[in-house]
Amino acid sequence: MTITSDIDHVVAQLRRQVCELHSLLTRYELVIWTAGNVSARVPGRDLMVIKPSGAEYASLRDEDMVVCDLHGNLVDGALSPSSDTAAHAYVYRHMPEVGGVVHTHSTYATAWAARGEPIPCVLTMIADEFGGEIPVGPFALIGDDSIGRGIVEVLRDSRSPAVLMRNHGPFTIGRTARDAVKAAVMVEDVARTVHISRQLGVPPALDAADVSALFDRYQNVYGQTGRPSDVLQENR
Amino acid sequence: MTITSDIDHVVAQLRRQVCELHSLLTRYELVIWTAGNVSARVPGRDLMVIKPSGAEYASLRDEDMVVCDLHGNLVDGALSPSSDTAAHAYVYRHMPEVGGVVHTHSTYATAWAARGEPIPCVLTMIADEFGGEIPVGPFALIGDDSIGRGIVEVLRDSRSPAVLMRNHGPFTIGRTARDAVKAAVMVEDVARTVHISRQLGVPPALDAADVSALFDRYQNVYGQTGRPSDVLQENR
Amino acid sequence: MTITSDIDHVVAQLRRQVCELHSLLTRYELVIWTAGNVSARVPGRDLMVIKPSGAEYASLRDEDMVVCDLHGNLVDGALSPSSDTAAHAYVYRHMPEVGGVVHTHSTYATAWAARGEPIPCVLTMIADEFGGEIPVGPFALIGDDSIGRGIVEVLRDSRSPAVLMRNHGPFTIGRTARDAVKAAVMVEDVARTVHISRQLGVPPALDAADVSALFDRYQNVYGQTGRPSDVLQENR
Amino acid sequence: MTITSDIDHVVAQLRRQVCELHSLLTRYELVIWTAGNVSARVPGRDLMVIKPSGAEYASLRDEDMVVCDLHGNLVDGALSPSSDTAAHAYVYRHMPEVGGVVHTHSTYATAWAARGEPIPCVLTMIADEFGGEIPVGPFALIGDDSIGRGIVEVLRDSRSPAVLMRNHGPFTIGRTARDAVKAAVMVEDVARTVHISRQLGVPPALDAADVSALFDRYQNVYGQTGRPSDVLQENR
Repeated sequence: MTITSDIDHVVAQLRRQVCELHSLLTRYELVIWTAGNVSARVPGRDLMVIKPSGAEYASLRDEDMVVCDLHGNLVDGALSPSSDTAAHAYVYRHMPEVGGVVHTHSTYATAWAARGEPIPCVLTMIADEFGGEIPVGPFALIGDDSIGRGIVEVLRDSRSPAVLMRNHGPFTIGRTARDAVKAAVMVEDVARTVHISRQLGVPPALDAADVSALFDRYQNVYGQTGRPSDVLQENR
Repeated sequence: MTITSDIDHVVAQLRRQVCELHSLLTRYELVIWTAGNVSARVPGRDLMVIKPSGAEYASLRDEDMVVCDLHGNLVDGALSPSSDTAAHAYVYRHMPEVGGVVHTHSTYATAWAARGEPIPCVLTMIADEFGGEIPVGPFALIGDDSIGRGIVEVLRDSRSPAVLMRNHGPFTIGRTARDAVKAAVMVEDVARTVHISRQLGVPPALDAADVSALFDRYQNVYGQTGRPSDVLQENR
Repeated sequence: MTITSDIDHVVAQLRRQVCELHSLLTRYELVIWTAGNVSARVPGRDLMVIKPSGAEYASLRDEDMVVCDLHGNLVDGALSPSSDTAAHAYVYRHMPEVGGVVHTHSTYATAWAARGEPIPCVLTMIADEFGGEIPVGPFALIGDDSIGRGIVEVLRDSRSPAVLMRNHGPFTIGRTARDAVKAAVMVEDVARTVHISRQLGVPPALDAADVSALFDRYQNVYGQTGRPSDVLQENR
Repeated sequence: MTITSDIDHVVAQLRRQVCELHSLLTRYELVIWTAGNVSARVPGRDLMVIKPSGAEYASLRDEDMVVCDLHGNLVDGALSPSSDTAAHAYVYRHMPEVGGVVHTHSTYATAWAARGEPIPCVLTMIADEFGGEIPVGPFALIGDDSIGRGIVEVLRDSRSPAVLMRNHGPFTIGRTARDAVKAAVMVEDVARTVHISRQLGVPPALDAADVSALFDRYQNVYGQTGRPSDVLQENR
């Protein structure tokens, strides 16, 4: 398989975008050293753009991003792809509506994941963004399809774009890589707030009907076009 | 209703000020992504200036701020107003002394709000700034007057410029938008300190007489003109 | 009383130094908004240099620092002195070896202060810097000598340069204003570490003999001249 | 002993590298004021490069780094070596495979150290990097070989590059100084995450077989050449 010239421009743009999105992971303190990654599907192709393995965020350049097929094989790029590539690829193969995947070991989300405990829906912000509690996925070793399978099993039938993989950390998905990064930022934020609230008591869960009302409104009305934060971003 | 030329200058100034104040929300880490907003009343008019909906802080420009009437209808601006506009508008309609309103989901204040527990007055800083415990407001869905009504019911008869809305987060008010931002910064700071203190015991509450003495002194004597922090700020 | 020309240079230098030291308070996140202050004694004079009241850190200029006598009366400067000036002045009057005083509401130290609980000496770093547990001072209202009296009563017979004033926050002293700032940084750091350690158990206290051995060595051997951090600083 | 001209270049490079690595300690918030240090072995010589005592990070220059023999005696440099030099030297004398040593008082790792409690292996990231639980070392006074002996006794037979010295803080080792800094960053990160997870329950430990599988894969497969993060770094 080779990348034909008519998609060179699209891939170059995605390399830049995926590279830039990694800087949001550090700005929001979701990752340290090299421990996290963002990928984006190449629209209309069985390809993805992803971070190289073991690369530090501060020195990432657009051209370091690698292109893989959806079985994790390197298609274009000088470096080896992220060791989580198989998991990202599995998600793209089995969830065609997903355009971006993010994995971090962000502190509070990982703390819930280590206990294997879902984050209860006790805040309007959780209802808005996740549509209910944030679910837990199975423990899985890295290296084959296990992680990807675990993610897809949990997220396929959930309103949540985030899953807490046991003893590991959060994976998030989105229509775009940017949406998946937003979900990674939000899951850490609510994981922290609910953790802190729980330290001194048990915050009551929201009613299911209120959760659905908040989720529907946020997904359809909030923001400038029904999709949060894209308009202003795209105009700059 | 149109904005006549004699207030163009005032509105332009408020747009700049409201835009700048959002940078304090990020500097003090009170907000992430797009989740918080500042508004200012246009003095002498039934108008307010507020952040657009779903806009990220890093890319906000003065001209993005929108002007609404005090029922939340857009009067001037290219973008849709914040989804919390109805709550801000309700406060301005019912509390004429209020010139600024701020809403965040800052971590520690929201953690108290999730439990529906007021922050007890156990620090001189809480007495100074809030004049007693920081109260809790009702749970309310977004989209109509419910949130605004809840804020006004609680704050109308309180010395506190902050209310913790159940399962949601803090709203703060002030004579100016800058004062409301200060209250948002302070409520998070004391929410964090009291939370941490409470983790290893129960800090004793201050005597009511001491609280009043501290509050009166801080509101009337502290700072350069009896109003904290304005003099130096205005000279720059 | 007037400032004669032969000390103009010394006062100008102290104004610059005190102003600069406030930036360490923000860099180490010990203060928010205007809530903390540094002062320095004018050597050989009954004078001190201190931050003005209600002034924000980001906009402080050298010339904003005010000069007071050791009863807190303004001697030179356009702004009102810090509302904590009486406490600083009392310390300088009663502890002639003290050349600098710092007050903050730093989160973890204030959390211990709110409970009125001393920080136990469970770390070599606490033995090094504080020579034992970090003591608690009485509750005192602001406005007269009460706070200063409480600080002096506790610190006069202690190896610790820090005292946790009940329901209020830490005050620290030093041979210089820089040393007092260092103590303010260290008290927050160890307050945080011991708090976190205590959340999951009770760390054992160090033996008194080990504490004294560590304290003596650190005060006399550590650093370049027996005084930590001054040599490199002064060479720049 | 003198430094002959043929190793001048190597020592100059190490001085620059060791100086730069201290900036990672501050970037990852592992140290405050002067409380932490990095050293590197001079390859093929009984020499090491280390931070001077009591020097602040912000003002460190390459030429401030001092050269010592492996008994801690100053060989080259204008300043006194770190007060932890004896501990670093002991490690280099007894562990020839170690090329770098780091000591910090990072908050969460020190909190575990204060309780004398190892960090359990409950996260894939701990298995990857530490190959099991992170062990505790004995309490030891500073000033002779005690600290070094404690470090070597624990780490000689461990897969972990980090040891939590009781009532003191973490020491980490690595093939290079950069690897030791990475271990210092990672030990604080996992100390924090596991602490937070443990606050609301007990996260289950990973199976020993899974730990070994993860450790072997990470040490041998991860990254660009089997050594994490070096390729990209060396190309810049």
